[in-house]
Amino acid sequence: MIEDKNKHRTELSDLGEFGLIDHLTKNFKINHKSTIKGVGDDAAVLDFKNNKIVVTTDLLLEGVHFDLSYMPLKHLGYKSVVVNLSDVCAMNATPTQITVSIAVSNRFPLEALEELYAGIETAASIYNIDVVGGDTTSSTTGLLISITAIGTIDGDNEVYRNGARPNDLLVVSGDLGGAYLGLQILEREKEVFKVNPNNQPDLEAYSYIIERQLKPEARKDIVKLLKELEVKPTSMIDISDGLSSEIIHICKQSEVGCDLYEEKLPLDPVVISTCEEFKIDSTTVALNGGEDYELLFTISQEDYPKIKANPSLTVLGFIKEKEAGIHLVTRAETKIPIKAQGWKNFNA
Amino acid sequence: MIEDKNKHRTELSDLGEFGLIDHLTKNFKINHKSTIKGVGDDAAVLDFKNNKIVVTTDLLLEGVHFDLSYMPLKHLGYKSVVVNLSDVCAMNATPTQITVSIAVSNRFPLEALEELYAGIETAASIYNIDVVGGDTTSSTTGLLISITAIGTIDGDNEVYRNGARPNDLLVVSGDLGGAYLGLQILEREKEVFKVNPNNQPDLEAYSYIIERQLKPEARKDIVKLLKELEVKPTSMIDISDGLSSEIIHICKQSEVGCDLYEEKLPLDPVVISTCEEFKIDSTTVALNGGEDYELLFTISQEDYPKIKANPSLTVLGFIKEKEAGIHLVTRAETKIPIKAQGWKNFNA
Repeated sequence: MIEDKNKHRTELSDLGEFGLIDHLTKNFKINHKSTIKGVGDDAAVLDFKNNKIVVTTDLLLEGVHFDLSYMPLKHLGYKSVVVNLSDVCAMNATPTQITVSIAVSNRFPLEALEELYAGIETAASIYNIDVVGGDTTSSTTGLLISITAIGTIDGDNEVYRNGARPNDLLVVSGDLGGAYLGLQILEREKEVFKVNPNNQPDLEAYSYIIERQLKPEARKDIVKLLKELEVKPTSMIDISDGLSSEIIHICKQSEVGCDLYEEKLPLDPVVISTCEEFKIDSTTVALNGGEDYELLFTISQEDYPKIKANPSLTVLGFIKEKEAGIHLVTRAETKIPIKAQGWKNFNA
Repeated sequence: MIEDKNKHRTELSDLGEFGLIDHLTKNFKINHKSTIKGVGDDAAVLDFKNNKIVVTTDLLLEGVHFDLSYMPLKHLGYKSVVVNLSDVCAMNATPTQITVSIAVSNRFPLEALEELYAGIETAASIYNIDVVGGDTTSSTTGLLISITAIGTIDGDNEVYRNGARPNDLLVVSGDLGGAYLGLQILEREKEVFKVNPNNQPDLEAYSYIIERQLKPEARKDIVKLLKELEVKPTSMIDISDGLSSEIIHICKQSEVGCDLYEEKLPLDPVVISTCEEFKIDSTTVALNGGEDYELLFTISQEDYPKIKANPSLTVLGFIKEKEAGIHLVTRAETKIPIKAQGWKNFNA
């Protein structure tokens, strides 16, 4: 949260649109054979031969989706890419290209955008995707990022939200609730900083959950793993809004019910200790936290032997008939209906 | 500019994200075989078989790209789609799908978004494209629209900006300068309205140029025409920033020069009369006006007989060697260098 005020500042107006795009994308490499033409024409040209593709898009706004007082621009660039790649992975597809559009006000110097694009480039490099286009414009207020991601599907391996069937197993990758708690820590430190700007916070103990918030990963590795294990999920979604919300999406679209076991929720030790510190229920955090970007999917019971030994995957419960409803089975073996948390941005 | 204050107003917060997307896209039909899955999952699934595709994206912000005091929301929705389709056409491709993301503040009721989406739906229907995804979020300030368009290429018919060769002919579709002058009329009426809100403007005489500004069209018909005429342009771009700027793009990327003949600039009679009224030079307007969304392209001289009789196409000049530079040849037969107008948004 400490900024070097002596950093060189280049005004965006010194470059103009064309200079800006050229400058920001000059380090971006094209790695995919499917990218025939990237940045620099009216549109990118892509050739996927006989493969189906997936397309997804996300809009991130300053003040709504991120707070630059604790989100470094490089992390923001990285995360903006990752949240889109996560949607591609949730189709059981492999991300290949993105376009990146930004709107930015004059209060940002060129150096700030270079940081943002450094994060985008890092994500592009780690996930092996090509940046093939975009748009850059001025904004009268803050920063806005709009990314569209494209991925390829291997054969007929696309997985929708609507394929879950009774008796399927509900499975999740990784662990839950970390990103939400990381945000709580950052919000708390922001308040401390307002009172005492010289305070040097020691966030070492929270590094896992802060990283879950600031630098989440898309589970491209899980898509690869499932292929290697020869498991095609019957349905899949990524966890952006929270486990409850995503389970409801799968159940509604698949016209099924679900029993989710509280005792099965995968929680990192830092999540458990931070919940104790904040005096909040870890189950509530795991259910409603959001932004974990793990993959939630259902598999046929006959695929269970293939996944049961894998430390990255946890079976959370069972798909039931629609009439059975959607429930959390608590440690005390009571059943509590799982309800949608809704979407609160418009109430802000 | 007169608003019915008694219109029903539904607050966006009454719907939430999922209700909102469902509501706004429920009338959208899927027409393309290539659209396997549209709105409603983590991503759209598309299958173009063996065809190459093009991808392009544009960001439109209230206060930067449009002014809602004279831009009706339905027109804005239509235009937002068209400017993206124009980029697809400029690759000599046929638009097939779009994703639409919007950020909107609480000051917009649901009815306003319905208007916006009615315009999007009209464009989708007229241009035969499928709306296959998007994102809807709240904004702390105005309205923002981010659209990504996808199109298919027939065989190897993609056309870049960099293929113009010396002796090629420079050709433009339609006429120039109308959109810019339409904007001048609307700006003037806005000022009149501020002084006297009861004034009922008679804009009948300007209807052509106002329509060029508020409801531009993408020249999908020209892509079709060129195919029928068996003409593959050597380079192509759409006119969004103005003829001068686009000529410079083609010349720079193709490493060529150009002679553009002032007497050849296609001007509508309303453009000429409005230039006289505003006491501005029609050549300046045609060169720098922008937003005409016509197609500017170069063809081999041997293709000239195929296009010469066509009323939609005008030969503007010749491509020269790079060393010759880029010039306007005036009616007085003097040569004036054509310079980039740059991009002024960041100076605003």
